Amino acid sequence: MIGAGQLARMTQQAAVDLDVELTVIAQTATDPAVRAGARYRIGAHADAAAVLAGPGRRALGFAQDKLAARADFRAAGFAVPAYAPVRAPGDVADFGAEHGWPVVVKARSGGYDGRGVIVVAGPDAIPPEIGAGDGDDPAGPAWLVEAYVDLVAELAVLVARRPSGPGVVYPVVETTQVDGICRHLVTPVTAVGPAVAVEAVRLATALADHIGAVGICAVELFVAPGGRLLVNEVALRPHNSGHATIEGNRTSQFHQHLRAVLDWPLGPTDPVAPAAAMVNLIGTADCADPSRNLPAALRVGGAYLHLYGKESRPGRKIGHVTALAATTADALDVASRAVAALLTP
Amino acid sequence: MIGAGQLARMTQQAAVDLDVELTVIAQTATDPAVRAGARYRIGAHADAAAVLAGPGRRALGFAQDKLAARADFRAAGFAVPAYAPVRAPGDVADFGAEHGWPVVVKARSGGYDGRGVIVVAGPDAIPPEIGAGDGDDPAGPAWLVEAYVDLVAELAVLVARRPSGPGVVYPVVETTQVDGICRHLVTPVTAVGPAVAVEAVRLATALADHIGAVGICAVELFVAPGGRLLVNEVALRPHNSGHATIEGNRTSQFHQHLRAVLDWPLGPTDPVAPAAAMVNLIGTADCADPSRNLPAALRVGGAYLHLYGKESRPGRKIGHVTALAATTADALDVASRAVAALLTP
Repeated sequence: MIGAGQLARMTQQAAVDLDVELTVIAQTATDPAVRAGARYRIGAHADAAAVLAGPGRRALGFAQDKLAARADFRAAGFAVPAYAPVRAPGDVADFGAEHGWPVVVKARSGGYDGRGVIVVAGPDAIPPEIGAGDGDDPAGPAWLVEAYVDLVAELAVLVARRPSGPGVVYPVVETTQVDGICRHLVTPVTAVGPAVAVEAVRLATALADHIGAVGICAVELFVAPGGRLLVNEVALRPHNSGHATIEGNRTSQFHQHLRAVLDWPLGPTDPVAPAAAMVNLIGTADCADPSRNLPAALRVGGAYLHLYGKESRPGRKIGHVTALAATTADALDVASRAVAALLTP
Repeated sequence: MIGAGQLARMTQQAAVDLDVELTVIAQTATDPAVRAGARYRIGAHADAAAVLAGPGRRALGFAQDKLAARADFRAAGFAVPAYAPVRAPGDVADFGAEHGWPVVVKARSGGYDGRGVIVVAGPDAIPPEIGAGDGDDPAGPAWLVEAYVDLVAELAVLVARRPSGPGVVYPVVETTQVDGICRHLVTPVTAVGPAVAVEAVRLATALADHIGAVGICAVELFVAPGGRLLVNEVALRPHNSGHATIEGNRTSQFHQHLRAVLDWPLGPTDPVAPAAAMVNLIGTADCADPSRNLPAALRVGGAYLHLYGKESRPGRKIGHVTALAATTADALDVASRAVAALLTP
């Protein structure tokens, strides 16, 4: 696995069940997956990605190049937000004039958790570095500009596909982002009706098929007014939006990812409880270690705690808490209380 | 943790969730818990046990000395099978003459999974080594003899206790042993009525309190005709009879054990499904590696597979499979089919 953060860490926990030996490409010997016992080699993620070849390469390209992904998805008939490459500083202003303000400027690659995403309120607020010199760069534009979608909700759908044999899809989850970082999710979805949820599953499955994904494919969707679905992002790996599957579904996304990439039969995805919620544990300004509050958080009955073994830094995902309940409101309440306990100064 | 087998392996998986660093005393660097990523030191289990002191020492003594445990439990008013120490070869014959044949001869310490347990059909079948020279051994008798209980069923109850704060108890499970090895378990119990199950919980809780256990305390009970409960064995650690708690209960025995020994608040023990079953994967005569059949076993929908990374040997526990369902029969069917798939020659 390329990377040794929390996604690799939780994949390692799943790998132990099946006695699969997982080796990760880590940045340091204290990365979360290495601390959890994964075999590792020290290496740069970008180098490791570059040497990979095989059936997943085209799919990986989409995951790493937002501009190529947008263009491909649109050409294949999938609805995406209106967008344009930024080849010159004036392109953002032109796009805003045509599609209205605000607009969203995104780094073509490398962005995550809100990094590399800038909401630009109007023509006077365009950062001067956007598009400067890109017209001459043989690698193409470094930024794209997108219409700001007036969201009803954000949904995510996990699909798992193996090289041979049928794929599976998980129930839709509804995610809530603040400053581009997922704060929490609930399932089943409450903000949209069942018809939109069904369409989200159909769309995600079709998109994963189109990409030819192998492993977990997480499709993030915008719900625009009227229930219209737009493809936001696609990730080809276990994903934050699937963390509640560890306790909440009959096969966790981490077990499923291993089964899929090893071309083994996939497992059932149905939920084990009426509702689930997951709240991310995000580092606060004081950088305090949440494990000092573990006893208080464990007092919240029914909260499933996951600490990633990462140093706390402001805005960094350092753990998550899942809860299962009769309703999403109850589950969200339990998980939120445990996170609040962990973050108490 | 003393020992680095499957119990330590599954404790390591739970420790990752809470970012607890687990160190195990292992026999080799390829022991199951070490393969799963636990920190380790090579050492003999007996030495490690001998140097331990503290509040759990008395309880540990009971776990390691069946004769002392039987005597203490009986003196405290807990019903145990009729038994006697074997101080001379004639003691087994005398016991059989008094209590009837067959009798069960047990090693005072060190036995597990049917090892160190001999069912003796009559006075002519007593192995000559039993009791020879024990009258002179300052360490006391090496064997005890017990009445053979005509079982209605075998039950197990897990209790978790922490040094401060209240303990918790898990729902009763019904275990099925063949040749002294647990083959499978189901919960809720079907072979006895609810009154016996309630009494089993009461008895196990009282016994764990009496012992002063810290951590998971597994109480194995015989159900004699008429529903009378006798204490069979007590284990002061996560136990085979609790493996279905990983998927089947809101807090697994491995998470609970860590919370208990670290004196953290304990978690809820209620089941997440109407019924659960666990079937042990036991090495067959051909010593075949079950992982070669993983794809076939994964085709059994809803089976939770756990492979311990141990070399297969006849009679050795090398994994287990759990299933959740609407009835114990359905759950047992699913888990059994997955185990059968793994053991297909």
